Amino acid sequence: MPHIPLDPNLPGITGLLNYRLDTALPIRQLTQILLRGESTLTEGERELIATVVSQGNQCNFCCNAHTAAADALLGETTTAEMVKNDPENAPVSQKMKYLLQIARNVQADARTVSAELVDKAKQAGATDLEIHDTVLIAALFCLYNKYVDGLASVTPTEPAFYNRLANILKTSGYLPSENRYATLNNS
Amino acid sequence: MPHIPLDPNLPGITGLLNYRLDTALPIRQLTQILLRGESTLTEGERELIATVVSQGNQCNFCCNAHTAAADALLGETTTAEMVKNDPENAPVSQKMKYLLQIARNVQADARTVSAELVDKAKQAGATDLEIHDTVLIAALFCLYNKYVDGLASVTPTEPAFYNRLANILKTSGYLPSENRYATLNNS
Repeated sequence: MPHIPLDPNLPGITGLLNYRLDTALPIRQLTQILLRGESTLTEGERELIATVVSQGNQCNFCCNAHTAAADALLGETTTAEMVKNDPENAPVSQKMKYLLQIARNVQADARTVSAELVDKAKQAGATDLEIHDTVLIAALFCLYNKYVDGLASVTPTEPAFYNRLANILKTSGYLPSENRYATLNNS
Repeated sequence: MPHIPLDPNLPGITGLLNYRLDTALPIRQLTQILLRGESTLTEGERELIATVVSQGNQCNFCCNAHTAAADALLGETTTAEMVKNDPENAPVSQKMKYLLQIARNVQADARTVSAELVDKAKQAGATDLEIHDTVLIAALFCLYNKYVDGLASVTPTEPAFYNRLANILKTSGYLPSENRYATLNNS
């Protein structure tokens, strides 16, 4: 049960973003810029960063949601699954492997992002902006994970819920909109 | 040395917020709402939440900056010092002690914020909104701490730097403004 009264039709982050709309707006705007704005990283790659950070924080709601979002954007489920459970052999570029490692380090203890790891990412083709954005996406998902779990928001168990949410994230992004969650609880 | 090229006159978070202005704006807006907006928690109390979270993440830049901001707002240095090093005996209300404990749990592992701890905070007078805001402030400072340390931004060692920054945070808040950091490097 959540620690504060949240709309029971809006589990996980959705009810929290609905609880206080003035703080939700800049959180949504920041996410839209980082995950859907212009970037040399694909939307799918950026959702993979969100996924591994949420996995590291053991935030099941966010990990399920962003795995489903990555799957929807990539059109397959293998990459997200392997990035989570067998990262060395995941079908992503060497550059992405290093960026995902940077994201994991930011999640665990940001002080462990070493110059050596950053150099490896740069030698594999990562730009300064990609490194910046990877760190900030990882930091943002630490905010989300801690917001969701710190208030004990509800984590649905049915995979179909996350597929419906992923479809909203794929087609509408992260900004607020009228009837944003109209399809969330339709079976 | 920072992992990406940052303005050497803008250490810590200041250079990062200057590096990518479009992502900086919603981060600044969210912080302004949570730390300076209307609230039943004082600005000093909210800076104490930022301080203990930054202490927990061992982010020296943020811990120094928000300790100095709390000191400036409270008009004394004892409270922040004791909240960090002897929280049981710190001269804050019982409600604040529980809220600071919630913030520390969010920082360490948000899943450990128990219903029991939240109930204690509520019995000591904390409202649902205060609990919400405490968790979100703690989550936001995890973002800041990880952003600052994940990119290895510079941490000044001279206390006077943090007093100058705290004066900006006290008098101007967190929103962007022309010549915001004009006084930052003046001795």
